[in-house]
Amino acid sequence: MPASFADRFAAARAKYGPLVLGADPHAAVLAAWGLTDDAGGLERFTDIVLAAAAGTVGLIKPQSAFYERHGWRGIRALTRLAAEARSAGLLVILDVKRGDVGSTNDAYAAAYLGEDAAIRADAVTVHPYLGLDAMGEFTRRADEAGGCVLVVVRSSNPEGRAVQAAGDGVTVEQRLLAGIGAVNARLAPGRLGPAGAVIGPTPTGPPLDLAAAGGLLLAPGVGAQGATPAGVAATFAACPDRVMPSASRSLLAAGPGALGDAAARLNAEFLALL
Amino acid sequence: MPASFADRFAAARAKYGPLVLGADPHAAVLAAWGLTDDAGGLERFTDIVLAAAAGTVGLIKPQSAFYERHGWRGIRALTRLAAEARSAGLLVILDVKRGDVGSTNDAYAAAYLGEDAAIRADAVTVHPYLGLDAMGEFTRRADEAGGCVLVVVRSSNPEGRAVQAAGDGVTVEQRLLAGIGAVNARLAPGRLGPAGAVIGPTPTGPPLDLAAAGGLLLAPGVGAQGATPAGVAATFAACPDRVMPSASRSLLAAGPGALGDAAARLNAEFLALL
Repeated sequence: MPASFADRFAAARAKYGPLVLGADPHAAVLAAWGLTDDAGGLERFTDIVLAAAAGTVGLIKPQSAFYERHGWRGIRALTRLAAEARSAGLLVILDVKRGDVGSTNDAYAAAYLGEDAAIRADAVTVHPYLGLDAMGEFTRRADEAGGCVLVVVRSSNPEGRAVQAAGDGVTVEQRLLAGIGAVNARLAPGRLGPAGAVIGPTPTGPPLDLAAAGGLLLAPGVGAQGATPAGVAATFAACPDRVMPSASRSLLAAGPGALGDAAARLNAEFLALL
Repeated sequence: MPASFADRFAAARAKYGPLVLGADPHAAVLAAWGLTDDAGGLERFTDIVLAAAAGTVGLIKPQSAFYERHGWRGIRALTRLAAEARSAGLLVILDVKRGDVGSTNDAYAAAYLGEDAAIRADAVTVHPYLGLDAMGEFTRRADEAGGCVLVVVRSSNPEGRAVQAAGDGVTVEQRLLAGIGAVNARLAPGRLGPAGAVIGPTPTGPPLDLAAAGGLLLAPGVGAQGATPAGVAATFAACPDRVMPSASRSLLAAGPGALGDAAARLNAEFLALL
């Protein structure tokens, strides 16, 4: 049995801090870095990000959309990024937000989680629109491989409220946190389980019982979307050591030469506050 | 300005019928067809499906998960499938169920819709968990390119009810249909617009005002998930000529040699009923 993702995160956090470096080769970032907006540019981007991340942060989070934009060659670059990052000891959170009916989820889970995965990640993001209960293969594989499934519960954008805040007394997001908690109580009684939640770092709705999820919490879009480290600490005050704050654009803006230093500084800031 | 997706669907429907052939290389299908469960097997699978589909059906729908399972080589096979299907005059619905914050959606839309897309489809499926209002670039690109964005509103699996039926008086799925209708009224006043909905073919909740969406309706999983053509006709009685019923496993089970005939028979059955 491999170490759980929660234990591996705790070790990475103790060594470097909780920061997740978002590896998002947005067209604007490639241009600012003097790289071509094609698969070759992506390969160079991943080399630079890997060199900056290794030994500086414990986790890296590529956003699949920016690789898919370059077709199969982009996915090939993403595959290499994930493999080399894992070899360098980084935990890889693949931000794909997949989610479908059960038989299709089985194929998605096999694509990204477990030893035989085509593009192996340590954790993946999923969306729950077709039901948390259809995700058994995601959580089974994550549990078996020391991985994690991060369910988008409350997103960092205001447009998400239309679905996430719906409900009659109990909202969709509250119900999901309880559902994640139930999955974890079954798979990992008495410890943090393989299911986690994605929670926007800035309060966009009423407080949530975040501890009830019984798992880790990914807080994406720190910096570019307005959240500060102090704001993250306030939002997640109930369980600060479970938070994985992620920053991408705000760090990548430092440029290829200064990315590592910018990440180290932000990581230290988070470690002091969380 | 290219012809709209709705007009292209109407032409395909008049010629062949409304059936969408689901090109889902599930491991069990590859095994039953005597193909290897790897990227090479996928390439053979796509050749067989393309030969059966061209001249038999008007639309084809690959489910991305079954290609992603084979990594970048699987995506390369999917890319070829989409390109060759479009060259053969088929409308390609890429079932990817993407959805994220706005800036990420922009990258997903660029990946799959429009002339410069890396993997060009005529239509894509999206999920609305992070908000329909974050999907402006999807609908803009679809509108410009004669494409379509199919928003999962009511899925064909029972697990989806937890989110889709939430609400205080007005449910998430009802609100989404109205939202899709508003997008179409703005982009295509007085005609069927570039936004559509994915609606499970079997009633899993109270009746919906399907005509209010002002767009096409994809009904996935006919056959394997229990829905019959007569059931589809009943579910979509309010707007039968807007329905795109999709069948995958139930047709692929006919085997490589009989797939075309099975699809033609089912298409004729749908055309008579819808």
